[in-house]
Amino acid sequence: MQKVTASIITIGDELLIGQVIDTNSAWMSQQLNNIGVWVQHRVAVGDVRNDIRHALDEEGRRSDIILITGGLGPTADDITKPLLCEYFGGRLIMHQPTLEHVTYLFEQVFKRPGAMLERNKKQAEVPDVCTVLKNERGTAPGMLFEKDGKVFISMPGVPHEMQGIMKDHVFELIRKRYSMPRIGHRTLLTAGQGESMLAEMIQSWEAALPTNIKLAYLPNYGMVRLRLTGMGEKEQVEHELNKQFDLLKQLVHAYLVTDEDIPMNEVVGRLLKALGKIVTTAESCTGGYIAHLLTSIPGSSAYFHGGVVSYDNRIKQHLLGVKAATISRYGAVSAETVTEMANGALALMQTDYVIAVSGIMGPDGGSEDKPVGTVWVAVGNKDRIETKKLWFRFDRKRNIELTAINALNLLRIFILTNGSA
Amino acid sequence: MQKVTASIITIGDELLIGQVIDTNSAWMSQQLNNIGVWVQHRVAVGDVRNDIRHALDEEGRRSDIILITGGLGPTADDITKPLLCEYFGGRLIMHQPTLEHVTYLFEQVFKRPGAMLERNKKQAEVPDVCTVLKNERGTAPGMLFEKDGKVFISMPGVPHEMQGIMKDHVFELIRKRYSMPRIGHRTLLTAGQGESMLAEMIQSWEAALPTNIKLAYLPNYGMVRLRLTGMGEKEQVEHELNKQFDLLKQLVHAYLVTDEDIPMNEVVGRLLKALGKIVTTAESCTGGYIAHLLTSIPGSSAYFHGGVVSYDNRIKQHLLGVKAATISRYGAVSAETVTEMANGALALMQTDYVIAVSGIMGPDGGSEDKPVGTVWVAVGNKDRIETKKLWFRFDRKRNIELTAINALNLLRIFILTNGSA
Repeated sequence: MQKVTASIITIGDELLIGQVIDTNSAWMSQQLNNIGVWVQHRVAVGDVRNDIRHALDEEGRRSDIILITGGLGPTADDITKPLLCEYFGGRLIMHQPTLEHVTYLFEQVFKRPGAMLERNKKQAEVPDVCTVLKNERGTAPGMLFEKDGKVFISMPGVPHEMQGIMKDHVFELIRKRYSMPRIGHRTLLTAGQGESMLAEMIQSWEAALPTNIKLAYLPNYGMVRLRLTGMGEKEQVEHELNKQFDLLKQLVHAYLVTDEDIPMNEVVGRLLKALGKIVTTAESCTGGYIAHLLTSIPGSSAYFHGGVVSYDNRIKQHLLGVKAATISRYGAVSAETVTEMANGALALMQTDYVIAVSGIMGPDGGSEDKPVGTVWVAVGNKDRIETKKLWFRFDRKRNIELTAINALNLLRIFILTNGSA
Repeated sequence: MQKVTASIITIGDELLIGQVIDTNSAWMSQQLNNIGVWVQHRVAVGDVRNDIRHALDEEGRRSDIILITGGLGPTADDITKPLLCEYFGGRLIMHQPTLEHVTYLFEQVFKRPGAMLERNKKQAEVPDVCTVLKNERGTAPGMLFEKDGKVFISMPGVPHEMQGIMKDHVFELIRKRYSMPRIGHRTLLTAGQGESMLAEMIQSWEAALPTNIKLAYLPNYGMVRLRLTGMGEKEQVEHELNKQFDLLKQLVHAYLVTDEDIPMNEVVGRLLKALGKIVTTAESCTGGYIAHLLTSIPGSSAYFHGGVVSYDNRIKQHLLGVKAATISRYGAVSAETVTEMANGALALMQTDYVIAVSGIMGPDGGSEDKPVGTVWVAVGNKDRIETKKLWFRFDRKRNIELTAINALNLLRIFILTNGSA
């Protein structure tokens, strides 16, 4: 059994000038890791011949599998395919099955046969030294090259096309070619305690971890995920991971949100689904983001039927029945206002639970009394509404995200401590 | 005048197993590019001594400025600081101003003086060979090292802390140290035409571009951004970019959405603001995401007062007045239903414009007649509602995003072609 290593090369000026965030690398890393491949290096280079060549040389020396994304589009700024052809000592030939597939896409899927141009046809050209990996979702095929015992796989940078090629071909190819060690992960999510304090709590356990098990602290949104990674023979590593994970869960029990690697919105969704309860939202400062998080989970219609975005005071009053006097006396960002928003939404939407938020997300709108980042959250049911003031010191985007995640966590705690409604 | 180059090294196993998406690199690249630094290489390595060392060696040879993020947290999985200390030939000493800052944060900002542990104090230790860059937003300071004429800057991986150190110190340091060529960008957004067709339309113009101006095609959300990048002496490059950008705008005029590098939600927001008009949203399948996009722009309260997430038919009927007969005859995903949703939302929210969407985002819920990805969008005002059927062939997340962006674009076109309400 060998340790199989991989490198990822992403090609494209748009990555280096920061116009595009690289989500492909994270997805590929995650998936490869799951099947036991250790991604040890990732590199991003621009559309520059020498830089691409150099990356191929270097990563080819470093890793067993080299995955390359980007640079395969139909337009003139793409130089990757000719370069790969030259690098692996081939010449470009028309690949008939790919040409038929491109034609099929234009005629049957895009329904625009007339839009197929010479440059689209050229996407069916491949180096004669590669194995073509069919791209069901687009016109640029994947290409597999071998050199000095190393495998190079080039794929387009469009995320769902790359993911399709990986699922349709690459994982299977890797599984067939290598006998791999097991890489296992266990991740839990904690809330309410910082990274340092958690580290203190689990210090002696951490020091006694076997050498093939690693612990990582992943702080995010004011919460901390703890991840155990183990590598080795499958049964042994799974057994050891389970044992250590159980110990860890006991140690952080008081702050444990979930022992699965799922986000807060999914934790709350599962809880509601298990109880057969419905939640609604009344959002001011988060502007629909909490509803979006809830509905981004498939099957969320089981516990979310709708919500109100009451961004302006007019809507808070008109739709949710918040009293004008409450807003003028306490302000739109107050315990009193979010309580009335919550009660109004419960009545309007006829649900079991409610989340209501009102705050100042920035960059403007703060005052000495209520600085930017001040948020009031209300969670509850028809019998009881609880409110909490939060304060985040970040930019608008992050303040919105933190408000949403923390509001969901407050609902979770409410449900767990107050029983079902 | 020299070409100043930079490399970015990100450190952390969480990046290589794909548990975290690297947004730092994009932000750093963008900002550096703006001040004229050319980021030519990005590399991600795990928490592995040899890999970090090797990356420092390699990027130190390659670039003038090496920016390093990650690996500076207070917990045991961080090995970066001792390694940097060793690499640059120093020893760790307690940095008194940083210790005072960490103490201040725990006492005055976190309001938890008792939570300050030995491991937090250790964050104030720095190699005696570095220049400390104060981190106003966290406990781990930035550190600047020099070696063989190259500048290495190490920062924590928490995005807002890294960004703070860059803004407070790094940009100014770079500007003082180097005299840089101008790197300028011009970006426009098109909709309604594919990458290949655009390429045909601008072919001869593109072929005649001066060598210091590069064109890139950046397809996203079914739209295509075109970006010109120029490098050289400031006045000359700005002049040439303006000239070429004007030509490009004329060529793609029929498909031009905006000639600024802003997203669709901001384009629509600016249009509404300029007209002094208000929009509301009635969202089924997008579950609040359109409202979120609108309100993620600062100042959006000028044109968005609120919206309804009517995820379930019950809410569509009860709150928006969609007739039960309409849903049972045509289905919830139909021109008829989104038209009634739109009219209901206009009446409920008393706004000038409305966007209503209903569709099947997947993975389940599709039928032969209405497969996953089918969406009906309605946009309009009290005088006129227009509907359009869309179909996306992607996963839930991407279907939601595409629906939202395209619905906003349909509203934009409605406003431009129907005049103000």
